[in-house]
Amino acid sequence: GVLGSGDFARSLAVRLVCSGFKVVVGSRNPKRKASLFPAAAEVTFQAEAVKKVDVVFVAIFREHYSTLCDLADVLAGKILVDVSNNTEINHHKESNAEYLASLFPACTVVKGFNVVSAWTLQSGARDGNKQVLICSNNQEAKRTVAEIAQVMGFTPVDMGSMSSAREIENIPLRLLPAWKIPTFLALGLFLCFFTYNLIRQVIHPYIREQKNKLYKIPIEVVNTTLPCVSYVMLSLVYLPGVLAACSQLYYGTKYRRFPDWLDQWLLHRKQIGLLSFFCAALHAVYSLCLPMRRSHRYLLIETAVKQAVEKKMTVWVEEEVWRMEIYISVGIIALGLLSLLAITSLPSIANSLNWREFSFIQ
Amino acid sequence: GVLGSGDFARSLAVRLVCSGFKVVVGSRNPKRKASLFPAAAEVTFQAEAVKKVDVVFVAIFREHYSTLCDLADVLAGKILVDVSNNTEINHHKESNAEYLASLFPACTVVKGFNVVSAWTLQSGARDGNKQVLICSNNQEAKRTVAEIAQVMGFTPVDMGSMSSAREIENIPLRLLPAWKIPTFLALGLFLCFFTYNLIRQVIHPYIREQKNKLYKIPIEVVNTTLPCVSYVMLSLVYLPGVLAACSQLYYGTKYRRFPDWLDQWLLHRKQIGLLSFFCAALHAVYSLCLPMRRSHRYLLIETAVKQAVEKKMTVWVEEEVWRMEIYISVGIIALGLLSLLAITSLPSIANSLNWREFSFIQ
Amino acid sequence: GVLGSGDFARSLAVRLVCSGFKVVVGSRNPKRKASLFPAAAEVTFQAEAVKKVDVVFVAIFREHYSTLCDLADVLAGKILVDVSNNTEINHHKESNAEYLASLFPACTVVKGFNVVSAWTLQSGARDGNKQVLICSNNQEAKRTVAEIAQVMGFTPVDMGSMSSAREIENIPLRLLPAWKIPTFLALGLFLCFFTYNLIRQVIHPYIREQKNKLYKIPIEVVNTTLPCVSYVMLSLVYLPGVLAACSQLYYGTKYRRFPDWLDQWLLHRKQIGLLSFFCAALHAVYSLCLPMRRSHRYLLIETAVKQAVEKKMTVWVEEEVWRMEIYISVGIIALGLLSLLAITSLPSIANSLNWREFSFIQ
Repeated sequence: GVLGSGDFARSLAVRLVCSGFKVVVGSRNPKRKASLFPAAAEVTFQAEAVKKVDVVFVAIFREHYSTLCDLADVLAGKILVDVSNNTEINHHKESNAEYLASLFPACTVVKGFNVVSAWTLQSGARDGNKQVLICSNNQEAKRTVAEIAQVMGFTPVDMGSMSSAREIENIPLRLLPAWKIPTFLALGLFLCFFTYNLIRQVIHPYIREQKNKLYKIPIEVVNTTLPCVSYVMLSLVYLPGVLAACSQLYYGTKYRRFPDWLDQWLLHRKQIGLLSFFCAALHAVYSLCLPMRRSHRYLLIETAVKQAVEKKMTVWVEEEVWRMEIYISVGIIALGLLSLLAITSLPSIANSLNWREFSFIQ
Repeated sequence: GVLGSGDFARSLAVRLVCSGFKVVVGSRNPKRKASLFPAAAEVTFQAEAVKKVDVVFVAIFREHYSTLCDLADVLAGKILVDVSNNTEINHHKESNAEYLASLFPACTVVKGFNVVSAWTLQSGARDGNKQVLICSNNQEAKRTVAEIAQVMGFTPVDMGSMSSAREIENIPLRLLPAWKIPTFLALGLFLCFFTYNLIRQVIHPYIREQKNKLYKIPIEVVNTTLPCVSYVMLSLVYLPGVLAACSQLYYGTKYRRFPDWLDQWLLHRKQIGLLSFFCAALHAVYSLCLPMRRSHRYLLIETAVKQAVEKKMTVWVEEEVWRMEIYISVGIIALGLLSLLAITSLPSIANSLNWREFSFIQ
Repeated sequence: GVLGSGDFARSLAVRLVCSGFKVVVGSRNPKRKASLFPAAAEVTFQAEAVKKVDVVFVAIFREHYSTLCDLADVLAGKILVDVSNNTEINHHKESNAEYLASLFPACTVVKGFNVVSAWTLQSGARDGNKQVLICSNNQEAKRTVAEIAQVMGFTPVDMGSMSSAREIENIPLRLLPAWKIPTFLALGLFLCFFTYNLIRQVIHPYIREQKNKLYKIPIEVVNTTLPCVSYVMLSLVYLPGVLAACSQLYYGTKYRRFPDWLDQWLLHRKQIGLLSFFCAALHAVYSLCLPMRRSHRYLLIETAVKQAVEKKMTVWVEEEVWRMEIYISVGIIALGLLSLLAITSLPSIANSLNWREFSFIQ
């Protein structure tokens, strides 16, 4: 049974029908809404619909839960599946599922399907791999809903008791939480190093020798800033592991919890590492672009003309040549190794490595 | 039970034996064929084999289905699993599974396992993630086959009733259908822009000033063509979303189906976007190669010599310098952002993002 | 029931409790160890713990299995899950699970969960996709353990009878076995070609003309070596397929097993191909870096000065220009095509292609 006639209710009904279930939709205006649902689904009044089914998907907004109170009698003993989402993280004091359970104490409430979008429901089983997180205080009801999810082509994941409902409801609202701190860190570091390099390469020569080097800002200053950020970020990837080891040695046990800041730091290493790789890759592209610039061309011609006029035939400085050759060579090797690290952090590749292989590559 | 002794029958028998099933193979010449199958599988005459089992995998070609008609009596009441494939899309009027069901009305036919290759069957469970699409008119039989698939290490996906059989049989024959239109579009755009740039950069100077610039064709003309293709493709990614929104605003509802062409366009956005990124990446590589060319070197030396002879010491054009610095700088940033889009379109990463994160990145 | 109080035992207990199981932990010192386990798990003496449960996870080292012999009576008839790992591949004559089974003939032993790390157990169900490989001689016990794994959020994979235990125990110890031969092959080829190019580009000019070209070693010699390695590796990807086809034509059958060396070669094609791509990509980056070098700049200026002094205005060699333009152009196209091959070898993309699409791209 499905209560509601919104987007999600329709997609849910479509998928349930396609998976071979008998679907009854409960609507307050069945005649007007029937055309929205697949022909195989029966659309009728809410009370009638609920009578005919054992599992009821409540696909209406939290604000309208109270309108169902008239149905309390027919709903008694049924399994209610709360598929609702909020618009803000921790918007209400109690989760939607717990609120629904408090309104209908005679029903068994299961939280689930809220992490699945209407689009995923419609686009069919093959697109899959999508997990459906389920929680409830009743094991039997949880198993029933998990089986329905499996037949629909989803992978049910048991998240334990109803107290996880709040966490499950927050999942579709999260916005790359693991990336926030590392991104701001990278931006902060970039700003610091950029200011330093700007003063050194542009402002200082201007004040001391009145030379206009403003043209260096978009590429050269950015290009000397990026590897600094990349280096510091890379060191921040390996530092917390060392700190954790020290802490374990100091306390003589590995069962003592790390302080929260260290724990958080350890958990963000992957993101910090990927941002470090991103900066390194950008640095490589910027460096490769250097000889394409007009300014590079002008300076080269200027030097050549000056030497030609002075009839100075050769200008080979062995030390400068070697410094550049080694610098570029080491840079390429470092970038190649970082690429391997970045590739192994792709979920599909990381999943195919065992622990020993993963730590070998790292 | 397995009927047949081809590649697929053998691989199926191997995998079933490995998964702990008791396997009986039915062959018309059991003595000659026995050596092809694993020792744990019993190879006997077809009629005898069928008698001993409840589920029969029919691993023979559609053309030979009629040869099984002698077995109709012993097959009655059994579950027949049709694993066959065709050589062409929509080759026959009815799907193989429906044809098999019409030949043996006393059996329950389930379509399945045709999307799995003999190679996947042999290479073992761990390589997995492979889905087995199943359809049948009988829920009970479908469940039995789904359980067998699960024990064999596959993920059974319920595709509904027998009418899906044709669709399932077409899947192994499809050849990147979602890429066809975007690829031809990209090639068409490339051809148009290439012709325009060829006329402008090579033919026009030749006709007007008799200058031979043919050497520009392989790199410079291609390099000015690629970003044009990339830009147009990128705009084609975002245009249909705007059109869809306009259509919804015009009709005042989001439940009206879009016209077919718009629907198709919306579904191809990912492919168009990836081709746009591919062109942009190629443009970046081509641009980076420009200073490596002999022609670049010759032109540079020529300019230097000319200036030296004229004793003109400096040639700094501030405007040209700035134009190039900003052009390169914006190009790198655009490429970096497009890379992020391309990375998030990898299935394993897209699956780990929720809807809000995905639309944020887009 | 969980026997043991190490890292793995704790993580296992945490996950079991979270998945809604009633957990009893058996320890030889329950008072001291109780604090390590979640509050919902009952920690008691080993004999008492075993009495209360049907399934016992034996989370202790192989060396201490014999200490459990006192419990033989209470353990009789229970399912023992061996989760142990070794420190070396094939360390003992018989697998840990078989050794456990021989110690407790009255119990049913199931091997499982050893490929899952304590970290994966703790980090929760969502990180998932992790497979749990299970084997046992008792189908019923295997099914029970598979169900537990499924409820815990893992994907149980049936690996057949107890004889697979050794193989399962070796999995967490393997270290990229498929990459060993291809990597040594690539290193060997690199060394050969590097020596040849070193002699040709550095040592030979030094001996014949006393010219010091040592600065070429880090970049130019490496850069001429990489494409040679890449070419040979690429040819090694396609050669075994040809050999296999020849062998099939020669023997007139495709059911004859290939010789072992050919079989191994066929299985390593993907790794050889990826290393070939890696060398090609490095070659591209090295080539792009060439104009950034000091030496390139000095040679350019030297040529310009020489010409200016000689008043030689133009130096356009049409043949050299064309050779370079075509060389670069073909190189970029080849790299673009190799990138597509490399991308389709990512597991998440390879899984979404059918056999026809995969062979089309290859």
